[in-house]
Amino acid sequence: MKRSLREIAEAVGARLQGDGEICIAGVASIAKASLDDLVFVDAAKFLAPALRSNAGAVIAGEFAEASNAKPLLISPHPKLAFIRAAGLLRDKNKDGMVASTHPSASVHPSAKIAAGVVIEEQAVIAENVEIGECSRIGAGCVIARGVKIGRECEIYPRVTIYARTTLADRVIVHAGAVLGSDGFGYLRDPSTGAYEKFPQIGRLVIEDDVEIGANTTIDRGALEETRIGRGTKLDNLVHVGHNVRIGRNVVIAAQTGISGSAVIENDAVLGGQVGIADHVRVEEGVIVGAQAGVPSHKILRGKGVVFWGTPARPIQQYLKQLAALGRLDRKS
Amino acid sequence: MKRSLREIAEAVGARLQGDGEICIAGVASIAKASLDDLVFVDAAKFLAPALRSNAGAVIAGEFAEASNAKPLLISPHPKLAFIRAAGLLRDKNKDGMVASTHPSASVHPSAKIAAGVVIEEQAVIAENVEIGECSRIGAGCVIARGVKIGRECEIYPRVTIYARTTLADRVIVHAGAVLGSDGFGYLRDPSTGAYEKFPQIGRLVIEDDVEIGANTTIDRGALEETRIGRGTKLDNLVHVGHNVRIGRNVVIAAQTGISGSAVIENDAVLGGQVGIADHVRVEEGVIVGAQAGVPSHKILRGKGVVFWGTPARPIQQYLKQLAALGRLDRKS
Amino acid sequence: MKRSLREIAEAVGARLQGDGEICIAGVASIAKASLDDLVFVDAAKFLAPALRSNAGAVIAGEFAEASNAKPLLISPHPKLAFIRAAGLLRDKNKDGMVASTHPSASVHPSAKIAAGVVIEEQAVIAENVEIGECSRIGAGCVIARGVKIGRECEIYPRVTIYARTTLADRVIVHAGAVLGSDGFGYLRDPSTGAYEKFPQIGRLVIEDDVEIGANTTIDRGALEETRIGRGTKLDNLVHVGHNVRIGRNVVIAAQTGISGSAVIENDAVLGGQVGIADHVRVEEGVIVGAQAGVPSHKILRGKGVVFWGTPARPIQQYLKQLAALGRLDRKS
Repeated sequence: MKRSLREIAEAVGARLQGDGEICIAGVASIAKASLDDLVFVDAAKFLAPALRSNAGAVIAGEFAEASNAKPLLISPHPKLAFIRAAGLLRDKNKDGMVASTHPSASVHPSAKIAAGVVIEEQAVIAENVEIGECSRIGAGCVIARGVKIGRECEIYPRVTIYARTTLADRVIVHAGAVLGSDGFGYLRDPSTGAYEKFPQIGRLVIEDDVEIGANTTIDRGALEETRIGRGTKLDNLVHVGHNVRIGRNVVIAAQTGISGSAVIENDAVLGGQVGIADHVRVEEGVIVGAQAGVPSHKILRGKGVVFWGTPARPIQQYLKQLAALGRLDRKS
Repeated sequence: MKRSLREIAEAVGARLQGDGEICIAGVASIAKASLDDLVFVDAAKFLAPALRSNAGAVIAGEFAEASNAKPLLISPHPKLAFIRAAGLLRDKNKDGMVASTHPSASVHPSAKIAAGVVIEEQAVIAENVEIGECSRIGAGCVIARGVKIGRECEIYPRVTIYARTTLADRVIVHAGAVLGSDGFGYLRDPSTGAYEKFPQIGRLVIEDDVEIGANTTIDRGALEETRIGRGTKLDNLVHVGHNVRIGRNVVIAAQTGISGSAVIENDAVLGGQVGIADHVRVEEGVIVGAQAGVPSHKILRGKGVVFWGTPARPIQQYLKQLAALGRLDRKS
Repeated sequence: MKRSLREIAEAVGARLQGDGEICIAGVASIAKASLDDLVFVDAAKFLAPALRSNAGAVIAGEFAEASNAKPLLISPHPKLAFIRAAGLLRDKNKDGMVASTHPSASVHPSAKIAAGVVIEEQAVIAENVEIGECSRIGAGCVIARGVKIGRECEIYPRVTIYARTTLADRVIVHAGAVLGSDGFGYLRDPSTGAYEKFPQIGRLVIEDDVEIGANTTIDRGALEETRIGRGTKLDNLVHVGHNVRIGRNVVIAAQTGISGSAVIENDAVLGGQVGIADHVRVEEGVIVGAQAGVPSHKILRGKGVVFWGTPARPIQQYLKQLAALGRLDRKS
């Protein structure tokens, strides 16, 4: 649904300059914008191209001055204001969503489905599953017995959620992700050499506002639990092992792997393809660079401290070592 | 359907030596070949074993001389001739394919399904999807609203294609792949510390003759597009982030990850487990060795130049550094 | 079903101290145990907490002495005894499993389904598939034509198995895994620059007691076969290329990739995110540390020898090089 620019300005806390009555239908990039789109610029050098674009209005930082070309929304955080405007315009569309269960879905009669829930084609909802208000279960998802999903969750197609998994509210899970699979724990029988499987009967708890990328896998606890904290974001093809605890507002880029019983504290950032071995502790606010590897039982400390390399060390130290290696090469 | 050796020779442009009337039904390895199989040898030392095998005929290079043992097809590119012979024998089998939609599939009435299309069990085809002639949609696939798929595409089972994705002709997508998922883009709200999601509403365009491996994930653009160029091949478990542009005839081995807004130009080759950070440019014909890591905004240049290591450097330089490090170790 | 402690002691070969008549229903961690749970301790320091817990009984090593607090099961391998007790209690539950095919599944009439098989919702079983006694096919799985699955296999939801794949007995496959997909093999046409696909028409053979993690992908052979040996365990998001041969009782941690035609011999252990290039041979009992990379055609030798780094070298050598690099940094 369209909104007037004035409504958007109020909702995102921006200062309106120009005609507030124009109608905005969506957000876009400067290159692709149409007349009813909103665009944003977070640096002065992009303002002129934005004003020359087809966009209906521009969100800009305090650097912008009133222009005859287009109405402006001035905000100290233009990108954040743009994100919120996008959410506002999208939410209105959601009002059109009508609760439904596609007839091709298999929903067990014991499942508790709240008001406003959409269950798409071929989805499978097993016994005693609970799904909260206004959540959507994508086509082809398989939700195993007893799983609890909160309200306003968005589960994209073909996600599998094993038993003993709980999702809180507003969790987003992308296609192909697997939540709550068995951890990788075996003990070798000394007499036969065969690996015997340790029980993998714990839980997986996903807190509010977590987003999980496509084809990511998260194992449940062996005897206790794996937990992903509130607001944490995982990219595609990430692996999280059993008994791992991840704090709040952690960011984990694609293809990173976290081994069993590791702890990642609040506000940590892990780049892509990082490897975290078992029982590692990444403390609050630590940043681990792409492809770094953190060996078993190691602790990384320091808010905002960046680690890189395998084995991971503070980045200044690592860069000095790389430089020394470069000099050595030239000498020899 | 079987073909005579003479027909095959003509189709693949090889010189026939011996009986052209024998019937060939398929291709095989030297070890496993049956009487109606064709095998190939691309080095003189493999010719004798091939002639001793059960195969009906042998494709060989110019090095081969006429033999009484078996008929030969002589080609300057014996492996390529073998590939084409295999395609020829396979295509004949395809003639048997009859258009059908399995009754367990869920196909929205607004979808436009061309002649010759096969839609397998439990597949989900949403509103306004378009599928071109002779394409196959595997069992359990989920094709979201408005997706366009060209002709002669082969979509293996359980692929998910999000809205705003377009596939051109003869695209092959292996099982479990996810195309068009949301990119990984957030902005931190300075007042709450929460990550707010940047709109991920762009497109994904896959050009002709692309092949995409099992469980690979490709994100759509945030506001604009992600694009995979004609003839490019992606192996299994590859990750491609939002706004990435990949050129034509690029080869990307398994488990490689490409971050947002990177550009991979035509004819580049990326080994397995390579990490490409955001905004990197890999220029035309560059080769990146397995597990190499290319830091943000870096540009790699030079047709046929090989880069290795993290951070990626020209391979000669990297190997010299490794050698220097080895000497250092022995001295100390 | 519950078991008396005496029954468990006999079944797992442990020495009972105390009341053997108490009933045990399951296994748990010390922190989470209830009165009818069994816990274990494999070091003397954990015995006191275990005796103070709510558990009904404790499995302990020879270090434990009789206690009035709780009955004990004494075993030379307490963790192994615990695993077996867990299996015993779980197996009894399995007796409740009744053969069934959910009406929403699509099972081709030519498929041979043995006694005791469970086929869950929306699963697809194609022509001429054979499934052995007491195996379970999870919801949304796609089993292609002619695939053979042995007895007592557990195939979790949304697994895809391509044609020409055979699973022996007691194989466990986690959700989203793809077995038997096409290998990654192309040849460049020198006249057009296009990559032509080499035939990928071989087989995939999975032997007894193999476990395969969530979203792992295993390609079939090009012309011959890919084989995973008896008792081998693969974690999540592992990639195995075409023509790879993996021996018995091999352990492969998450996100490791094995390129075409590599050989991994019996009892080898590969850490997480390891990269094995094509035609590598990892000999019997070799251990490769996390994130290590083994270049093409290299051979790693020595039972129990640990390799690390890229290119992989014996760990002592690698650690000495890292130490030398650290000193160099401090000098400069």
